Amino acid sequence: MSIVVMKFGGTSLADPDKIRRSALRAIESKKAGNQVVVVVSAMGKTTDQLIDLARRITPNPPRREMDQLLATGEQVTIALMAICLHTQGCDAISLTGAQVRMITDDVHSRARIKSIDARRIQEHLDAGRIVIVAGFQGITPEGNVTTLGRGGSNVSMVALAAALGGTCENFTDVDGVYTTDPRIVPNARKIDQISYEEMLQMSQLGAAVLQDRAVELAMHYNVPIHVRNSNHNRKGTMIVPATEAMEKIAVIGAALKEKLGRVTLFGTPNRPGIVAKIFQVVADYNIIVDDIMQTVVDSKTATVSFTIDLTDLPDAKKVVDVLSKKLNCKAVYEDHLAKISIVGGGMRTHAGVAFKMFNALGQNGINIENITTSEIKVSCLIDGKHARKALRVVHDAFNLGRGQYIHEPRVSPKKPAGKKTVRKTTAKKTKPKSPSKTKRR
Amino acid sequence: MSIVVMKFGGTSLADPDKIRRSALRAIESKKAGNQVVVVVSAMGKTTDQLIDLARRITPNPPRREMDQLLATGEQVTIALMAICLHTQGCDAISLTGAQVRMITDDVHSRARIKSIDARRIQEHLDAGRIVIVAGFQGITPEGNVTTLGRGGSNVSMVALAAALGGTCENFTDVDGVYTTDPRIVPNARKIDQISYEEMLQMSQLGAAVLQDRAVELAMHYNVPIHVRNSNHNRKGTMIVPATEAMEKIAVIGAALKEKLGRVTLFGTPNRPGIVAKIFQVVADYNIIVDDIMQTVVDSKTATVSFTIDLTDLPDAKKVVDVLSKKLNCKAVYEDHLAKISIVGGGMRTHAGVAFKMFNALGQNGINIENITTSEIKVSCLIDGKHARKALRVVHDAFNLGRGQYIHEPRVSPKKPAGKKTVRKTTAKKTKPKSPSKTKRR
Repeated sequence: MSIVVMKFGGTSLADPDKIRRSALRAIESKKAGNQVVVVVSAMGKTTDQLIDLARRITPNPPRREMDQLLATGEQVTIALMAICLHTQGCDAISLTGAQVRMITDDVHSRARIKSIDARRIQEHLDAGRIVIVAGFQGITPEGNVTTLGRGGSNVSMVALAAALGGTCENFTDVDGVYTTDPRIVPNARKIDQISYEEMLQMSQLGAAVLQDRAVELAMHYNVPIHVRNSNHNRKGTMIVPATEAMEKIAVIGAALKEKLGRVTLFGTPNRPGIVAKIFQVVADYNIIVDDIMQTVVDSKTATVSFTIDLTDLPDAKKVVDVLSKKLNCKAVYEDHLAKISIVGGGMRTHAGVAFKMFNALGQNGINIENITTSEIKVSCLIDGKHARKALRVVHDAFNLGRGQYIHEPRVSPKKPAGKKTVRKTTAKKTKPKSPSKTKRR
Repeated sequence: MSIVVMKFGGTSLADPDKIRRSALRAIESKKAGNQVVVVVSAMGKTTDQLIDLARRITPNPPRREMDQLLATGEQVTIALMAICLHTQGCDAISLTGAQVRMITDDVHSRARIKSIDARRIQEHLDAGRIVIVAGFQGITPEGNVTTLGRGGSNVSMVALAAALGGTCENFTDVDGVYTTDPRIVPNARKIDQISYEEMLQMSQLGAAVLQDRAVELAMHYNVPIHVRNSNHNRKGTMIVPATEAMEKIAVIGAALKEKLGRVTLFGTPNRPGIVAKIFQVVADYNIIVDDIMQTVVDSKTATVSFTIDLTDLPDAKKVVDVLSKKLNCKAVYEDHLAKISIVGGGMRTHAGVAFKMFNALGQNGINIENITTSEIKVSCLIDGKHARKALRVVHDAFNLGRGQYIHEPRVSPKKPAGKKTVRKTTAKKTKPKSPSKTKRR
């Protein structure tokens, strides 16, 4: 019998009636012959309400106590879900993070899972029960309640599937992963199948459907995830290991990150350790850096530039103003930028894909401020006022509305302007933000 | 250093501001040199809201899942209380029932405490922390969350004080235990000191301030309880072991239970086992019996009568109607009765106290339907329409508004109509009601 870990998010659990509908999905799956584990988030806006309660006391509550507080949200849902299943005549048991021994480290508000007691869950499954597990929460070896940070319930889902040797079904309010955001590009198409690497890039570049931590974990343990709509029974998107056929797809989707700011330091000393020092200071203030670019001006000076969320720009300005005085260089701040990206596992073997993107933007009068690449993505920083138009233009250039773009080398231009012409760049992320600032799921 | 277990009820924790005020009380006590454990209930109406959520799914939710659900209420409060204390610069830690290893049996919704891990709490206290414990909840040895039933937070308070060798402070919205209900008798007086036995009788007979289970436990472990008002700093009522001085007090208070019904079975067979059978059937339907009275009519027949809460009368009628047909006896049902009682540890050594009560009622035209007694109480069943007048009359007869009534034998009447003339009665309670019907705290 195969094990399915079904995860329902807050919107699929917003009231007792929606919980009942989610419960019926679980029963269907059990009747189809599966052993079923259900992972749930907190109901609707519960987490926000709990955060608000704490904020009425202090803007900076201690993290251990915030975890103790927030973990109640999922505990309410597991109990109600179990009650629903019992009412439908289905044997079920609810288990908190502590009860499944979801052991984590002690980094409160963004803990990492270390182990799960799969044996206890398996016993309940073998006894014919549906097991309902509180997502987003764990417990330290000392017995303190922890939470897993943003997207934590998806991390719980994948970790449980990995521990039990099962597959994941991630129920959301959309039909699956799209070639791009359908709210911006109406002819965006649902993707049937996407590789972990591609999904990881898509979510890091702005696709909100599944957080990168859950995808990373799924990739590590080879756990397939089916992202699907909780309102109907149609197939959604399968996130799976890359196959040979998938590697022919040069571009699978396009992503957009809006509201970016850029900080540029002109005339920084071109000495070993200076760049490290800059980003050490920025990280200390919990500012998440998106992309980093450096160009050498001459043997003594360099230009260092990085992008951040616009909301972090005021904080970054404070930090960098002090830093630039110390380093005796000039800081320039820009807002209203956006980053448009194309993602595809097949890109690494096909030249000309990047050129096609630059060309489409250029022909539509959209200037490229900066370019960053990896093996399976190309990103262009552009003026934010062109962001949505740029997404439509690029999506159309690769015909993504009709199918994944499989690059045919024979139609590539004579002078390919692909990856090799792109400026050398580095892209890395600083450590996650202070959890008290971090939004959840 | 002495250990104080301070318990705050839901009304003292209804919003973040009230939680802060309760936190300040705990800090005061710590500054006064105590090691402080705080036990909290759920905030305001939280428990009712959670019950309502479950009821929207089914009227009969499984008890294990209800416990899992309701335990979140106290968990929210401990976290918020800990956040408050941290904000005030006071080191504190919140612990759930599971985290203090409050081990109970597995009778969900009305579990009994078996043991507590006092060591862990003591370590936190010795480290200078205020320890905040979720009341009302425990955990089975297998790790299932349980709740302790009505008044459970007070039971937690006493159990913790017993395990730690501390004393209790029970913060409420009244000044302490009164000679009787001040809403009915305006000159009711706060009692400074009352024995466990007396308090037990008072709460069983209608005084709502502290439930009998908590008092029983306190008596068993000799834990003093200070019942006091959370809105000011004045001394409340000490509940303590009886002293010699206290045993001189014949009447310490008067209690009233309104809205009682009575079921009387005329002509029941006077055979061994018949009474047991009757109350077995009644208990099976979760009807709580107040007092039981039996009088033998002749060698073959007896009259059996019992009082119950008026709300249980319709259920009782269904059960007894069937039973009376089987036993071939006649059932009569009465509503609108009330029970007025006097309580005092000194009553057992003084005749004439009961007479004084009967006399006061008689002189005011209030007929006594039935009398039940124990060593430290006398109860009279009367017509409900006279209930409140009767309470005032009896309260005044013993001058309780001015002080406890110390009986002087020389002023007793020549023909005492005290305890010995009272009809022989038995008083016992059947097992508690189905918890899904039971109100909490």
